[in-house]
Amino acid sequence: MKELSKLLGFRKEIKVVDATMRDGGLVNDFFFDDKFVQRLYQTNLKAGVDCMEVGYKASREIFDPKKFGKWKFSADEDILAVIGENNTDMKLAVMADVGRCNYRQDIHDKKSSPLDIIRVATYVNTMPAAIDMIEDSKKKGYEVTCNIMAISNAQEGDIKIALEMLCQSPVDVIYIVDSFGSLYPEQIARISDLYMEYAVKYGKQVGIHAHNNQQLAFANTIEAVGDGVNWLDATYSGMGRGAGNCSMENLLGFLRNPKYNIFPVIRFVENDMIPLRQSGVTWGYDLQYLMTGLLNQHPRTAIDFTKAGRTDYVEFYKEIVAQD
Amino acid sequence: MKELSKLLGFRKEIKVVDATMRDGGLVNDFFFDDKFVQRLYQTNLKAGVDCMEVGYKASREIFDPKKFGKWKFSADEDILAVIGENNTDMKLAVMADVGRCNYRQDIHDKKSSPLDIIRVATYVNTMPAAIDMIEDSKKKGYEVTCNIMAISNAQEGDIKIALEMLCQSPVDVIYIVDSFGSLYPEQIARISDLYMEYAVKYGKQVGIHAHNNQQLAFANTIEAVGDGVNWLDATYSGMGRGAGNCSMENLLGFLRNPKYNIFPVIRFVENDMIPLRQSGVTWGYDLQYLMTGLLNQHPRTAIDFTKAGRTDYVEFYKEIVAQD
Repeated sequence: MKELSKLLGFRKEIKVVDATMRDGGLVNDFFFDDKFVQRLYQTNLKAGVDCMEVGYKASREIFDPKKFGKWKFSADEDILAVIGENNTDMKLAVMADVGRCNYRQDIHDKKSSPLDIIRVATYVNTMPAAIDMIEDSKKKGYEVTCNIMAISNAQEGDIKIALEMLCQSPVDVIYIVDSFGSLYPEQIARISDLYMEYAVKYGKQVGIHAHNNQQLAFANTIEAVGDGVNWLDATYSGMGRGAGNCSMENLLGFLRNPKYNIFPVIRFVENDMIPLRQSGVTWGYDLQYLMTGLLNQHPRTAIDFTKAGRTDYVEFYKEIVAQD
Repeated sequence: MKELSKLLGFRKEIKVVDATMRDGGLVNDFFFDDKFVQRLYQTNLKAGVDCMEVGYKASREIFDPKKFGKWKFSADEDILAVIGENNTDMKLAVMADVGRCNYRQDIHDKKSSPLDIIRVATYVNTMPAAIDMIEDSKKKGYEVTCNIMAISNAQEGDIKIALEMLCQSPVDVIYIVDSFGSLYPEQIARISDLYMEYAVKYGKQVGIHAHNNQQLAFANTIEAVGDGVNWLDATYSGMGRGAGNCSMENLLGFLRNPKYNIFPVIRFVENDMIPLRQSGVTWGYDLQYLMTGLLNQHPRTAIDFTKAGRTDYVEFYKEIVAQD
């Protein structure tokens, strides 16, 4: 059983990462209004958030800039124009996907960028490409994290090899990612122990990025906190792909470090997230996401079901059960 | 750390209790359509649910029968008329609150009733009255459970005395109840250990009834499963007072006993729960419930906020923070 002190005290090493514009951007194709972004930035500062992820560094060759908002590409000049130079303790981050970015060109030297952290996202089987990206970003002066995605579909033996490779790279933080929202807290405890074993040995930190398919994003995040995981992703109102993520209001309500403050979060949800939902942007727990989570499948079928405005859950269940 | 076998295997002692009409009835004043009730009953049978709670045995002197649907009172003749004699393995239950029922008159001998289980609900400080009710129901031939409500506001020393008193009564099952939805899984683990200590010593079973204020109803329920708790309350779509309960679809997706079947649950949600929501009946996680949960307060202020159609979360937060 975990120590009671962990619930009433706090670990100063914990970092809260706001991933609203990045994972949430997957829901509205990154079309966030500049004023929304500025208020989000101010809210994060007031709430004590440690890092704000502003979007992806996606390739303009692979993704048509006419079809996406600017935060799909997160150019330094756009960050400077909307957010500014960010002379604060809060760090700015972007995510860069293996195979979907031109990192050599698009990620500039840290000296000339408002960004502080590059978050590399990879699958287990693209680890060498991820390590090349990690090395490139480290040389350019950034802090670097690495998300190993879709681990619920990977073999434990392969995950161990990936962790060993990653730990020998200059990466700073390794993320547990429950891409399909299929993991239970007991499994998160085991995975955290595995990641922590490597992290402690090699002097790395561990993070968690959870999805809410089974209404467990927050529960899995605080399970990981109890297991020594320090970097915690959350989004306002849980905004994120499909069933969404761990919600910032839940997480800051839980954390006991007095630097965190839930009041600005409540205000932002009232003033900005509720109108965003009312404008027709849709995310969050629903039966179709529970089903893909239970079946350990990518939520793309459930996202299509949602977009089509379908509510014939029974038919959907028959469709995805037969997909193997 | 819990045994991996607990996730892949199953304990045959686990009982799933459908509390939709009882806790859900608090949302629509127990005005369930007879056809809805009949389909719910058939769905529970097909889903492998072990016990269906049909409502309360409330006093007709305290509660005006004109203002509530029949499941507030759950008369034997109403159960017989709508559900029938229930010649199945699934048990029928009602809840009876200390101080809000005329149990001597309204609970008849089991021989002449379609009911199998009486669920006594009490606060820590009304334990002698609860034990009188337990003894009365046991004498009449029922299985009896006891919910100790609002334990997050009670002293641990008082809870221990209450458990000792209860364990010396003829009660069969003692329920952990997170009335305010304020408890985290780590706390549920500790409380489960405490209840299990008494239960094992006195040959009782332990159950859990969770609320979803912090999006933890399901997480807390499966935490308790891992700690040896066998009686699990759930409701379709999580329908229940305020933020609602652990949802049946989440729970049956988690349990591995092949007797449980999620398919009829999905169908019932599609055909009956979605229309119920669309008719204007409102429940489920929202920011106002998170706030009362975080502050360990009864959700009544949040329920009023919801009923008034308010979305000024910031004002609400100021109101309830100042309530002490």
